[in-house]
Amino acid sequence: MNFLEERILKDGQVRDGNILKVDSFLNHQLDVGVLNQIGLTFYEKYKDAEITRILTIEASGIAIAVMTARYFNVPVVFAKKAKSRNLDGDLYTSTVHSFTYDRDYNITLAKKFLTSDDKVLIVDDFMAVGKAMRGLLDICEQAGCTVSGLGIAIEKGYQGGGDALRKAGYDLTSLAIVDSMDAATGSIKFRKSEIG
Amino acid sequence: MNFLEERILKDGQVRDGNILKVDSFLNHQLDVGVLNQIGLTFYEKYKDAEITRILTIEASGIAIAVMTARYFNVPVVFAKKAKSRNLDGDLYTSTVHSFTYDRDYNITLAKKFLTSDDKVLIVDDFMAVGKAMRGLLDICEQAGCTVSGLGIAIEKGYQGGGDALRKAGYDLTSLAIVDSMDAATGSIKFRKSEIG
Repeated sequence: MNFLEERILKDGQVRDGNILKVDSFLNHQLDVGVLNQIGLTFYEKYKDAEITRILTIEASGIAIAVMTARYFNVPVVFAKKAKSRNLDGDLYTSTVHSFTYDRDYNITLAKKFLTSDDKVLIVDDFMAVGKAMRGLLDICEQAGCTVSGLGIAIEKGYQGGGDALRKAGYDLTSLAIVDSMDAATGSIKFRKSEIG
Repeated sequence: MNFLEERILKDGQVRDGNILKVDSFLNHQLDVGVLNQIGLTFYEKYKDAEITRILTIEASGIAIAVMTARYFNVPVVFAKKAKSRNLDGDLYTSTVHSFTYDRDYNITLAKKFLTSDDKVLIVDDFMAVGKAMRGLLDICEQAGCTVSGLGIAIEKGYQGGGDALRKAGYDLTSLAIVDSMDAATGSIKFRKSEIG
C-alpha cells in the first residue's frame, strides 16, 4: 500500500451518494507533505518524457500541479471554469459536465500558453467518469500538443473513466484506484497499485 | 526593485479598464520559480509568528498558498467560491463582491479547518479594493482565530484596499504595490517597497 492509499484509509470518509471525502488533506485543507509526495511520484514516472508544461484545471488541481511542476522545472497552466473579463485573446474552450454540481460548464485556456510544440503532463486530484479530463484532452487536441501522461491522485476505478482512457492508449498513472467503497461500513477497497 | 516588481515590468501588460495582466506567470500560467520566491519571502517575514495555517481563496491563491505553506510546514486551507455537494457539516460563510465579474458570490470554509487556536497567515495573488480579503477576514472573525499577517503578491495601491487594512492595524505585506498604471503607454509605477 502506498502513501496516498494509507492516508485515504486513515483520513478519508465514505459518504452516501458515492462521495469519498478527502477534504482534510487534498481538496479543501491541503497537506503540503502529501502534495509534495504526489508531485515527486509523478516526476519519477515521467521525468524522461521531456515534459514542457503541467496542465490542470482549477481549483484543487492547481495545488498538485504546482508541486509537480517544481520537480520538472516547467510552468503550470490551468484551465479556467468561467470566462473572466481578464482573459482576452484567443482561447481554447471545451464543455464539461460536472456530476458534483449536475450542470455543464465551459473551460477555457489561453492559446498562447499551449502550442503544438508542447509535451504535456495533465494532473488532477480526482477522476471518476473522467469528464474534466476529457475536456482537458479536447483542449490538448485543439492545441495539437503531445499528451505525454496523465497523473491522477485518486481514481474511482469502478466509474470507468480511467479504464476508458487506458484503453484509448493514454499513459495514465493513478496513485490510488478505489475499486469499491461502502458508506454503511466506511470500507474502501483499492485496486492493486503499480505505485509502491 | 524586487524580483516581483521586475517580473511585472518585464511580462505584465496594462490593459484598458484598469486591468493588469500577469497571466503569463501568476494566475493562468504559473511560474513555479516566482511562486517559490513569493512563498519564501512571506516565510522570511512571518517565520517567528508561530503560524498554524495558511488561508487563501480559490483559485489562483492556492498556488501561492501551497508554495508558502511548504516553508512553514503547516496546512493550507482555501475558501471555496460555491457550495459544493461534497462540502457538508458546519460552514463559515461570507459574501464577496467581485469587480472582475460584477456580481456577489458566497465563500465557504469548513469550520473544522479553522478554529480559535489558529494563528493564520492569509495570502492571495491580488488585492485591489480588498473585497476578497474582507471576506476571508470575516471568516477569521467567525472562527475567532488570530490573523498574524496578510501576504499579497500584487496590490493595486491606488484602489485603497491595502491602505484601509493597514489603517485598521493589519500586518499587510504586499510584494509589489502598483501606485499608477497607464494603458496607453503601458507604464507601471510602484510604491517604494519594503521588500528588497
